Amino acid sequence: MLLIEMFVFLGTIAFAISGSLLAIQKRLDIFGVLLLGLTTALAGGVIRDLMIGNIPPTNLAEPQYFLVSLLASLSTIIFFERIKKFNHSIAFFDAIGLGVFTAVGANAVLSFEYSQPFLIITMGLVTGIGGGVLRDVFVQEIPQVFRKEVYGMASIAGSVALIISYDFVSPIISLYICLTVTFTIRMLALKWKW
Amino acid sequence: MLLIEMFVFLGTIAFAISGSLLAIQKRLDIFGVLLLGLTTALAGGVIRDLMIGNIPPTNLAEPQYFLVSLLASLSTIIFFERIKKFNHSIAFFDAIGLGVFTAVGANAVLSFEYSQPFLIITMGLVTGIGGGVLRDVFVQEIPQVFRKEVYGMASIAGSVALIISYDFVSPIISLYICLTVTFTIRMLALKWKW
Amino acid sequence: MLLIEMFVFLGTIAFAISGSLLAIQKRLDIFGVLLLGLTTALAGGVIRDLMIGNIPPTNLAEPQYFLVSLLASLSTIIFFERIKKFNHSIAFFDAIGLGVFTAVGANAVLSFEYSQPFLIITMGLVTGIGGGVLRDVFVQEIPQVFRKEVYGMASIAGSVALIISYDFVSPIISLYICLTVTFTIRMLALKWKW
Repeated sequence: MLLIEMFVFLGTIAFAISGSLLAIQKRLDIFGVLLLGLTTALAGGVIRDLMIGNIPPTNLAEPQYFLVSLLASLSTIIFFERIKKFNHSIAFFDAIGLGVFTAVGANAVLSFEYSQPFLIITMGLVTGIGGGVLRDVFVQEIPQVFRKEVYGMASIAGSVALIISYDFVSPIISLYICLTVTFTIRMLALKWKW
Repeated sequence: MLLIEMFVFLGTIAFAISGSLLAIQKRLDIFGVLLLGLTTALAGGVIRDLMIGNIPPTNLAEPQYFLVSLLASLSTIIFFERIKKFNHSIAFFDAIGLGVFTAVGANAVLSFEYSQPFLIITMGLVTGIGGGVLRDVFVQEIPQVFRKEVYGMASIAGSVALIISYDFVSPIISLYICLTVTFTIRMLALKWKW
Repeated sequence: MLLIEMFVFLGTIAFAISGSLLAIQKRLDIFGVLLLGLTTALAGGVIRDLMIGNIPPTNLAEPQYFLVSLLASLSTIIFFERIKKFNHSIAFFDAIGLGVFTAVGANAVLSFEYSQPFLIITMGLVTGIGGGVLRDVFVQEIPQVFRKEVYGMASIAGSVALIISYDFVSPIISLYICLTVTFTIRMLALKWKW
């Protein structure tokens, strides 16, 4: 398995956990917890695929991401008491998710032979935050990206780094640069409570 | 008119009524009541069409479903005092709507020559619950599918039944099997308050 | 620059301001204010493009509308104390936005060689109200179009005027007729508190 695919699974798991945890807090039933976990993990990629014309969206056509999300959500239910103590590690996984999904989303634009820098940034952002926005809307919260300054900004900075580095290094390297920049900025924001 | 088309109109009417009733409860004005009825009845099919690339979406390009929804919503306003007494029959129509839309949604995937079982299930679910999710989001409620365990499950079970039966019976029969399974499970859930 | 393009920029600015003002009222941080302004200004066009198959959506692929929206949102933050006094002029700009976006949305359908009258009306409506609906959903309000009777109606009347006039005058004239009808009805509704 390619390293990047492993990261995608890691990001998917992190987002599924964040959705399931919020659903449990909001006292949804089991189906609701699973569905919110799945929505958080898969919706960003679906929205991006609609916008770049990748039909049907990969996350709905291929079951592996669904299965991983389902497993992560089920595990969240089973190990809820233990996981909720690790809010810090959740934020850590969430930051990985944001970084991975931004990188994969920005990169998907390039692999579809579009190259407008602006489109790359918006698709990175939509992929990175889309699932979380729906998660929050569905449980009646103002989406986190509107409330935390250095959340969307981290994604944008990552995509800018991808665009700048793209002409100088191999595509896969610039993808990791994007992931690293997004993740690092988000973690610094958490640490210093930006 | 084919029997299935008659069921589609029945499902459309049921969903339009459910949207309009909720809008009246929330004290929206007449335009708001009509718009919420239309959204509930038409949005699930629109979202599914976007996801399988049926552009422009049938519900926006052809007026018959719009007209039926509009009529149903107008009737809900006129006969509000009478309809609201029949909460039980509303739930009955809503279950028909869920069954019909799941069956039509799952079937639309097959008619577009995709055949991944996972895509069939997700498109059945999106078509079945999409309108209701938007209805609830627009009036500031947590969507019903997140709160009622055997709502989304009924849709998923119906699509699974469609997939299993598809190789053994004619497509139209497996469509009715899907409708019947979804509807029956949903009605049983209502009866036994699952 | 064509006159209509100037109107599109004016509508974009008006919607960006309305989104940013609401975000400031809701005490979102700076990134949230900018993002809500951008969402309000750009989302209607994005949704319409998805529905007519204009992929990737113009508002995400070309940066000029984004830049204008960003500037308008930044100005709203800087001049907040002054702008908020002019609620009346905001409503005036918002009515221009509704008129322009309805006209451009309805017209986009014709330029994509679809011609169903019903699709023209729905796409005018989606383009005109889509951004505002997302704006309100994201800050936990029932969307304005569900609460103000003569908001969606103004858009629909404008598109009907476009369809009727299309066979008698040049396309650009019927576009201005649509804009004028929508804008006038909306302004009258505001004046007489319909």
